[in-house]
Amino acid sequence: MRETGISSEAVYSGALLVVRRDRVRLPDGRESVREYIRHPGASAVVPIHGNGDVVLLRQFRYPAGKVFIEVPAGKRDPGESPETTAIRELLEEAGVRAGKVVQIGHFYPGIGYSDEVIHIFAGTDLEETPSATDEDEFVRPFRVPFEEAVRMVHAGEIDDAKTAICLLRVWEWWTRRLR
Amino acid sequence: MRETGISSEAVYSGALLVVRRDRVRLPDGRESVREYIRHPGASAVVPIHGNGDVVLLRQFRYPAGKVFIEVPAGKRDPGESPETTAIRELLEEAGVRAGKVVQIGHFYPGIGYSDEVIHIFAGTDLEETPSATDEDEFVRPFRVPFEEAVRMVHAGEIDDAKTAICLLRVWEWWTRRLR
Repeated sequence: MRETGISSEAVYSGALLVVRRDRVRLPDGRESVREYIRHPGASAVVPIHGNGDVVLLRQFRYPAGKVFIEVPAGKRDPGESPETTAIRELLEEAGVRAGKVVQIGHFYPGIGYSDEVIHIFAGTDLEETPSATDEDEFVRPFRVPFEEAVRMVHAGEIDDAKTAICLLRVWEWWTRRLR
Repeated sequence: MRETGISSEAVYSGALLVVRRDRVRLPDGRESVREYIRHPGASAVVPIHGNGDVVLLRQFRYPAGKVFIEVPAGKRDPGESPETTAIRELLEEAGVRAGKVVQIGHFYPGIGYSDEVIHIFAGTDLEETPSATDEDEFVRPFRVPFEEAVRMVHAGEIDDAKTAICLLRVWEWWTRRLR
């Protein structure tokens, strides 16, 4: 079933995206071409307050041209562990410091044209930092009961893939702990 | 919160990927650059047999270099409705004809660098076609109880984002009907 690389070429290197184009050998012996984005990987966190609220963000995303509801998430910096990325993004985007982060799993957002993997975390023992109260023009954090966030996924009000998966998988982990 | 486009340029047009690079005006008045992939959109289907089995596929994906478990899915051809794409992919990839397809929702797999939207369908009243029994070297369909597929998502054995979301959202719709 495997495809094996014959040659590989960086066909576009931009500020954000690196596109590669590889010649590959298919399982039946023929040759084909694969184009894909190289990505350093990312972490995404569901921050859970003691009262059961989660912290989500409203953020405008240019490619689709609309505001999405998202969990805090971001790309790994060079040499950074997925856990460190999760803690950093939580602080930068949601303005909360997590006493504890637990890795729940991982997923691949776009297997057809990217090698990106996103690590899923739950963040607990939260402490709000002063920046949490700064509304900025780019990322707006808000609190919502976890159960309501899950309802929003099933109702299609939350339609960002990483946020949907993180909420549903962390919810399953969270409610299993309480049973 | 919005960003508005100032200018837009296709910086890479390959066999599969089209990358655009836009200059944008940020909400605070500064300028920045956004790079992203233009995508025609896609449909993904959870095919559900009368006995409660779903049909999934094993498929090797070159960018991440591994075999993934997936729901049947594919890009929209020009002029095709999401429903037609769903029915076509079901036949081509899983070898089943669906008497009925129902749209359950949609999601955006990669809002940071793509405008792709994936429409989620449930396919029922399935009829296996002769091609369903052909094992090919690229896509291998198999049947598994729906509940077991959901367990595999939460266990991380299914780690393709579109498949995880489709299974969890269609499962919620499916079990709600039976309650």
